[in-house]
Amino acid sequence: MSPTAPPLSFNPAGIELDRGRGLTRQLYEALRQRVLDGRLISGTRLPASRDLAAALSISRNSVVRAYDQLYAEGFIEGRVGDGTYVAQLPSTEKLSTKVSTGLHTGLSPALSTKWENLPADLDDEVIHRPALGRLQNHYLSQPPAGPPKAFRVGVPAFDLFPFEVWAKLNGAFWRKPDLQQLCYGDPAGDGRLRGLIAAYLRSSRGMQCTAEQIVITSGAQQAISLCAQLLVEPGDGVAVENPGYRAAGHAFALAGGCLHGVPVDSDGIDCQALDQLGDCRLAYVTPSHQYPLGVVMSLARRLELLAWAERRGGWIVEDDYDGEYRYSGAPLSPLAALDRSGRVLYVGTFGKVAFPALRLGYLVLPPGLVDAFSRRRAVDMRHSEVSTQAVMAEFMAAGHFQRHIRRMRRAALSRRNALLAGWPSGLPGVGELPSVAAGLHMTVRVDSLAREQQLLDQARSADVEVNGLSSYWLAHSNTPADQRAGLVLGFAAVPEAAITDALKRLRKAWGADKQHGQLSKNSDLASFDPI
Amino acid sequence: MSPTAPPLSFNPAGIELDRGRGLTRQLYEALRQRVLDGRLISGTRLPASRDLAAALSISRNSVVRAYDQLYAEGFIEGRVGDGTYVAQLPSTEKLSTKVSTGLHTGLSPALSTKWENLPADLDDEVIHRPALGRLQNHYLSQPPAGPPKAFRVGVPAFDLFPFEVWAKLNGAFWRKPDLQQLCYGDPAGDGRLRGLIAAYLRSSRGMQCTAEQIVITSGAQQAISLCAQLLVEPGDGVAVENPGYRAAGHAFALAGGCLHGVPVDSDGIDCQALDQLGDCRLAYVTPSHQYPLGVVMSLARRLELLAWAERRGGWIVEDDYDGEYRYSGAPLSPLAALDRSGRVLYVGTFGKVAFPALRLGYLVLPPGLVDAFSRRRAVDMRHSEVSTQAVMAEFMAAGHFQRHIRRMRRAALSRRNALLAGWPSGLPGVGELPSVAAGLHMTVRVDSLAREQQLLDQARSADVEVNGLSSYWLAHSNTPADQRAGLVLGFAAVPEAAITDALKRLRKAWGADKQHGQLSKNSDLASFDPI
Repeated sequence: MSPTAPPLSFNPAGIELDRGRGLTRQLYEALRQRVLDGRLISGTRLPASRDLAAALSISRNSVVRAYDQLYAEGFIEGRVGDGTYVAQLPSTEKLSTKVSTGLHTGLSPALSTKWENLPADLDDEVIHRPALGRLQNHYLSQPPAGPPKAFRVGVPAFDLFPFEVWAKLNGAFWRKPDLQQLCYGDPAGDGRLRGLIAAYLRSSRGMQCTAEQIVITSGAQQAISLCAQLLVEPGDGVAVENPGYRAAGHAFALAGGCLHGVPVDSDGIDCQALDQLGDCRLAYVTPSHQYPLGVVMSLARRLELLAWAERRGGWIVEDDYDGEYRYSGAPLSPLAALDRSGRVLYVGTFGKVAFPALRLGYLVLPPGLVDAFSRRRAVDMRHSEVSTQAVMAEFMAAGHFQRHIRRMRRAALSRRNALLAGWPSGLPGVGELPSVAAGLHMTVRVDSLAREQQLLDQARSADVEVNGLSSYWLAHSNTPADQRAGLVLGFAAVPEAAITDALKRLRKAWGADKQHGQLSKNSDLASFDPI
Repeated sequence: MSPTAPPLSFNPAGIELDRGRGLTRQLYEALRQRVLDGRLISGTRLPASRDLAAALSISRNSVVRAYDQLYAEGFIEGRVGDGTYVAQLPSTEKLSTKVSTGLHTGLSPALSTKWENLPADLDDEVIHRPALGRLQNHYLSQPPAGPPKAFRVGVPAFDLFPFEVWAKLNGAFWRKPDLQQLCYGDPAGDGRLRGLIAAYLRSSRGMQCTAEQIVITSGAQQAISLCAQLLVEPGDGVAVENPGYRAAGHAFALAGGCLHGVPVDSDGIDCQALDQLGDCRLAYVTPSHQYPLGVVMSLARRLELLAWAERRGGWIVEDDYDGEYRYSGAPLSPLAALDRSGRVLYVGTFGKVAFPALRLGYLVLPPGLVDAFSRRRAVDMRHSEVSTQAVMAEFMAAGHFQRHIRRMRRAALSRRNALLAGWPSGLPGVGELPSVAAGLHMTVRVDSLAREQQLLDQARSADVEVNGLSSYWLAHSNTPADQRAGLVLGFAAVPEAAITDALKRLRKAWGADKQHGQLSKNSDLASFDPI
């Protein structure tokens, strides 16, 4: 091609440069854009750098650097003694014909925040791709914004965490890091931390576990999710408590599991109903304090559940999410401590003793499963961040952890009492407060869904966070709607004074009488240190 | 039942208590064990606490506390005026007949570390359960023990990380934590960090991305794994570079993908070969510095690959794992910066600039995918640990990050030069050192698999870590075995002196002449700051 061929010469008109920003980059981008969208076709001769600089009133140096970059990227090519040409590129027509869906256009941020606003071709994906499609029904709602309020659930008295101690331990770790620890670590987690967790569970929960059985996770949610990904195949039945912890259900559903809600009675999950589910080999349960009903699973029911798993060759995922909080009576042995045939996967978390955003939890696994879980976790993310594990190990080894648990138990008890003391009694259609022997929340039954919604609305208007029990049920439940109604109240998230304040506002919003509450009905307020 | 019925009376013989440990717990465990294994059957009357205390020569108080615990757990029951009996429990025979597979027996730690030693019923699981079965072939090997050595791959010059700065920023975060940040956070990650990453990518990689497109991950591995879990259905074809990054291949395979190895030539992945794979809609590539061959994907090939994804309605996962390391010439635009139809998922990591155990990486997603990825990540683990994200954001905002990148680039270049300077030239069967314009490793071809193995063995005996190129190929490759041979050398993990030392040992072990190496052949050692 001759350098003088007129149809392929380049006209710099239309290139507008903003003097306030880097000129080289702007020129580079303008030229690149023109090559990509076909305005500058292959073989077009570019002006000499001196001429283009003059045409655009910029320095020649800026043009040379932009050309260099385009050259390095293969957009243009030089011919010896013959100037600079747009290179021969494949498929540029193809690339330019389709309307961009986002990256280079003025992208609407809303596009990425609304599931409904998928581009057309992704809609096709969702319809035909189960992994994407399942997300339309199985996802966690956004965490509430703003600082914790009464009566947020799932949050301990983390305002009492010894941040100064934690800061010191963190500083100590980072000032003299063991370089060896900063490469790739063991996917099962920091060895020292695993040993300390095993010792803690042996002494506080009566579990006969070893460090080798423990796999560190990013909180309880990852532990549950790993169970789902390894033990559930698409189409498998999975038994979950109904009402129950929906985030766990979503994890099993995303793995392709078919959720079956099993009723919960005063002894825990109904094992007869469970046994009738022919295709279920996995059950997810919260025996130490059923979430959200607060029932403690009886020993008889525990043994029945273990026998079910053994008969089926199935698995029990035991989520001991607030096993540290027991206010009266002795804690029951976890299923994992009663299990004699390696069918229980025990889920523990530091999120309910320290704070949720720590994202530190663990699994205690039947020995035969440890290797599979470690392997899976390594492929998923290699391992958890190193310092959080090492600092928690030091926190435990130095005795801070046990001290903190005692402090947190006292605080939760005192906050529970503040709730009991100020709770409006005798509200029409609202059940009695249960006696709360364990955990960080309580659930009160309400006589209809309409009343639940009304009470929630009124609470919201009084800036009080109350959860509806109805949201803890599976979408397709046999239980009549009104029997799903109730109020779920977390009592640990904020200090006593804030609880008392919130109750004052709540009583007003609910039009309740100003009685002194039901504290006198609950006499089991002390002694929470069993053997 | 009468309290005097002799066949059901309890004989404390056989209970042996260690005076050095808590007596209450030992007694409780001994009794519980006997109930569970059937030695104490339902209806057996237990001795009065006073009598048992005398029989065992312990305090009555210890017995009372052990009984209380057993009572609380439902193992025993009291009958008014009639003493204490073993309770009626379901299925205890059932529970006791099966030999335990671990939890309560003297558990061999080896059981959990060898995949071959699964209990029999788990073997059945593995055969019938794809999620478990796939792990038999798709897992990462254990990371090497001990401190980093020459020539470990995948590790940057992390000995140069400003730990003192990092420690200070950590301390500052923990001393005055924003309590709101310590509850549950945004699954897509810390908002400030996402904004800073987007700004970094816009300025350093020419990407037109916004903070909303970024999802923080636990390192590149989790980013890749999320792509696999969301975009691959069981049976889907997935194209990977061959040789390539095996850990990525494993993630796609665990999601059920069928791996197809695509050859890599001097322009990058062979798009003609790719196009012939009719069932592939997803390709995983490392364009900025192919892992492990070191090829930089040409612009023409990039455009060809984008056109393929557009034609197929497919996806490209672009792993820019060491995009920060470019020593000569200008870096090419990432695929994500050239993509005009939202088909590229860009994977970035802080692990190659800071250190791997930080486990901090990110995805830059087409806007239509952001919501799906956030949702999935929330169900998988809610979000990443809070302080690492906040501290990295501060590290970037204060300018430490950009300074550190420059320091790391200089260090890697200098360590590369130490390798080039001391490399034994003229070894029989060993190819020329390539010119290394980018990245943290180099690959040298070797003429046969036997020779590769011999060189690796000799290196190991000289305490030098060299990886065989043969291990980067898919198990089933058409490429003849000898053509897969080579040496992969990471040059950044240890300082120059350690590299020089290692080369001395290596030359001796390999019987190489003591020439001055090939530095003179590689003249592109400077200028790594493009526009």
